[in-house]
Amino acid sequence: MPDVSRLSIHQVTLLEQCSTPQFVEALVRHAVPCTSLWRDKVQSYGVENTAKLVADRGIALSGYCWGGLVTSADRAEAATARDEVRRALDEAAAVKAPCLIFVAGGVDPRDKSIADARARALDGVADLIPHARSVGVKIALEPLHPMICATRSVLSTVRLANAWCDQLAAEDIVGIAVDTYAVWWDPEIDAEIARAGKRICSFHISDWLADTQDLRFDRGMMGDGLIDIPRLRRAVETAGYDGYLEVEIFSRRNWWKRDPDDVIRVIKERLETAV
Amino acid sequence: MPDVSRLSIHQVTLLEQCSTPQFVEALVRHAVPCTSLWRDKVQSYGVENTAKLVADRGIALSGYCWGGLVTSADRAEAATARDEVRRALDEAAAVKAPCLIFVAGGVDPRDKSIADARARALDGVADLIPHARSVGVKIALEPLHPMICATRSVLSTVRLANAWCDQLAAEDIVGIAVDTYAVWWDPEIDAEIARAGKRICSFHISDWLADTQDLRFDRGMMGDGLIDIPRLRRAVETAGYDGYLEVEIFSRRNWWKRDPDDVIRVIKERLETAV
Repeated sequence: MPDVSRLSIHQVTLLEQCSTPQFVEALVRHAVPCTSLWRDKVQSYGVENTAKLVADRGIALSGYCWGGLVTSADRAEAATARDEVRRALDEAAAVKAPCLIFVAGGVDPRDKSIADARARALDGVADLIPHARSVGVKIALEPLHPMICATRSVLSTVRLANAWCDQLAAEDIVGIAVDTYAVWWDPEIDAEIARAGKRICSFHISDWLADTQDLRFDRGMMGDGLIDIPRLRRAVETAGYDGYLEVEIFSRRNWWKRDPDDVIRVIKERLETAV
Repeated sequence: MPDVSRLSIHQVTLLEQCSTPQFVEALVRHAVPCTSLWRDKVQSYGVENTAKLVADRGIALSGYCWGGLVTSADRAEAATARDEVRRALDEAAAVKAPCLIFVAGGVDPRDKSIADARARALDGVADLIPHARSVGVKIALEPLHPMICATRSVLSTVRLANAWCDQLAAEDIVGIAVDTYAVWWDPEIDAEIARAGKRICSFHISDWLADTQDLRFDRGMMGDGLIDIPRLRRAVETAGYDGYLEVEIFSRRNWWKRDPDDVIRVIKERLETAV
């Protein structure tokens, strides 16, 4: 029997097959102890309903996904976006998630300035810190793959996340989420994971498929791609991370089409052989 | 009239519309002085025929694209791949291209080790240097976008290209090709372009589309996307680059479907307004 005590399955992994209650029951059925919830799903089932459901069924939370997109060059738009992140932090607190996954936002087409977008994202995080502290939810800065830099996240490397953490000086409330899919290609990754150390508050796993066909929704099951996931796991654990191994697979052409029980069975097998 | 004296249009920009003779005639018709040739096209028309054609029509070469894929974990395969690069260097010399664009190769699925793939790529370049010197063609290390790291190029950043150049200590014959599309997202790009300095022997331009739909063949025309191309141009020029501005647009859903004269007209307009 695989040891599932550190397994978390992100709700997005069964995004298209399951309602939130169906998803939670599937976790319970397979003795999966933890999840990270997907905000759209939580909102459609209701925050209070979801909070009660996971508490009643004994499912722990490793994160709440996501809030962010604070890089607008328009000050009013940026302020509105930060308010939306505050609501996401409130929801994360309600479902008892330890952290909110922070997705920085892309380049504003009105100025095409990636440097300015990065500066605005950092300012946005700084502005959100008091609220995060007040609700007791960490802001998990998640570097995302450079291929979604233009529209989703100008935070493209762990090195940059470390630089932001250095500047923010708020180690109690701002951490870093390391996602194998987003960072595996980075020549600096070993050094930057070591530098991040206890900042790492979330570790996401999935694989890179050789025949990737979509920039966002074609991730692979661990073992089906080119990433040496065990090596990255050792790196984050050596750096001090001892939290959940969170399986997060966006997969429109494969895993989202499969029976939920089959998907979870394969995840548990691969946890033994490919993580 | 736009100043086209530094304009090079890469053959791949009209890959699907034009044979090599049609392509060269289109350049002549629009007074475009320079191109970078695409190896598959050159081979199908013949190396000697192509060399004669560009010489007769007065078209200069800014590069020859491409050779590489030397990262196999199998020693015999890697040796065969390096021999193939030597042939590409010979062809580059025959058409009088100053450099061969070097595409490192991806991760070998047999070992899934990106560190080993990088080490083998660097060894491969070192092994090719004597032949490159003997034919007088520079090896242009081209960092490619991390989204094609798995299968095409483990050389993912200018920082890594600089590190390789430091190790190779062969500044006369190994340079760096900077491609806006591949590097624009990189938080370290300004510092690494400055560090590269005169190593930069090739500068490729195209734009990143907000709705990118393919990992390789969906590049945008300058001005249609999110990249601040003028800023990157200033960076390479400040670093000492004064060569051609090489337009390289792989575009299956748009520019490859258009009339060649229209494509070249738009390129010349954008050279004024968006480069």
